[in-house]
Amino acid sequence: MERKIAIQGIQGSFHHLVAQQYYREDVPVLECMSFAELTKSLVNGNASEGVMAIENSIAGSILPNYALIDENKLQVVGEHYIPIDMNLMVLPGQKLEDIKKVYSHPMALLQCKEFFKQYPHIKLIEDADTAEVARRIAEKESHKIAAVASKAAAKLFGLDILAESIHTKKSNATRFLIISTKKKEPNGDIIDKASLKFELESKRGSLVSVLNILRDFNLDMTKIQSMPIIESPWKYSFFIDVTFDNYEEFLKAVGILEVMTEQLTILGTYKNSLI
Amino acid sequence: MERKIAIQGIQGSFHHLVAQQYYREDVPVLECMSFAELTKSLVNGNASEGVMAIENSIAGSILPNYALIDENKLQVVGEHYIPIDMNLMVLPGQKLEDIKKVYSHPMALLQCKEFFKQYPHIKLIEDADTAEVARRIAEKESHKIAAVASKAAAKLFGLDILAESIHTKKSNATRFLIISTKKKEPNGDIIDKASLKFELESKRGSLVSVLNILRDFNLDMTKIQSMPIIESPWKYSFFIDVTFDNYEEFLKAVGILEVMTEQLTILGTYKNSLI
Repeated sequence: MERKIAIQGIQGSFHHLVAQQYYREDVPVLECMSFAELTKSLVNGNASEGVMAIENSIAGSILPNYALIDENKLQVVGEHYIPIDMNLMVLPGQKLEDIKKVYSHPMALLQCKEFFKQYPHIKLIEDADTAEVARRIAEKESHKIAAVASKAAAKLFGLDILAESIHTKKSNATRFLIISTKKKEPNGDIIDKASLKFELESKRGSLVSVLNILRDFNLDMTKIQSMPIIESPWKYSFFIDVTFDNYEEFLKAVGILEVMTEQLTILGTYKNSLI
Repeated sequence: MERKIAIQGIQGSFHHLVAQQYYREDVPVLECMSFAELTKSLVNGNASEGVMAIENSIAGSILPNYALIDENKLQVVGEHYIPIDMNLMVLPGQKLEDIKKVYSHPMALLQCKEFFKQYPHIKLIEDADTAEVARRIAEKESHKIAAVASKAAAKLFGLDILAESIHTKKSNATRFLIISTKKKEPNGDIIDKASLKFELESKRGSLVSVLNILRDFNLDMTKIQSMPIIESPWKYSFFIDVTFDNYEEFLKAVGILEVMTEQLTILGTYKNSLI
């Protein structure tokens, strides 16, 4: 199969930027207009790996994406962090007071909420991709409409930036996962991080016992999130990320967790990229 | 101050339904078009308490709402769960094939994603409130446009339901918090749940030590979520909910957590409503 990386959105999107940085080259990309389409392209073999946003410091985890990884039996094989930089862009000549509507990805609109509070006459409209709106404005020569996207998108589609870095939280990193149909094993590559999912009865202390095992095997937890399982009251799923120095110790801990927890799934093992 | 409950959205919205169920009467409500406006109305004394969605089983927590509670020094004084039931509604006479656009709250659109996959020609547009779209369609007698909202909203504004219960996850409960400027103390009322926020260095085992304290004082954890603090690498904030039988034991545990953690905030103490 030809090497092709599935991204959410089009060229110029934040996912495209992550693909370029992670693979350290201008890799060929497959543009997908939803996360569901992205996972489907991997399952169907139309792309070799995919880039998928998973969490940021404002909205937390994009939990539906974990479900997509899980349901499609995909594997996390890497991660990448980028600071998000949102910019308001228009067709050259348009001014801020001309703008009636802004289209962008819901997450981008959320990140720029404070900025738009100053302009209550501007209507915010959810769209599939930040860069795609920029392209549409350029192609259709749309007036009175603005996009919220990366500087790269403004450059790529010849738009003017009316306001730079309009996102509220200035140190706002977004974490992306690299996903694949194939598992990553430590043959030559560094593997020092893993994403796990499991279920537990909410017996007092059951989670403590799990965390004690992680500590005993020198695993550091970098993320934990519980989700109630509505169908089974008093049962919870947990999403946990751990980092470690010794892959063998990680495997031993997993062996014990398989007995202690229910429905244990290793979503992937990969190289930690947060230094 | 006159008793008035701030809700996100208008009458007929899911927040309105929660207010009616929680207060067990048709309480006067103050309609707010955003969560920020809702918290502001409490701070300004325009409402005595507020109803605020905080998490559901698809998207997880609405973390920005925790930030609003924290920044405005508000207190959680109660909680309420309702199963969400989403319905596609239109002006009487309109048919499914006439629909070009659907407006609704982003969370509602997310919950009905699968349904709309069958109708790729329908454009999904983010709006401030589910019920408000229904009202607008009725008032403007809009053709080709549908709302996704509760059956109560369809009835209230005289719309026809084209498709019932179109949300993907059929057992999809949403949790709402009741918030106030005043703390709830256990004088007569049952207090058996609390929401806490604190920060920890990611030293191996630091979270385990905290969870051991919770166990020692017979606190059951019903929710845990970590959030990386971008400004301080290797430091995390945690949002934790605990239930307990003995308020005195809870206070003792808090006393210890004040020493063990940083920036401990009790977001509120209240009555557990998940039986």
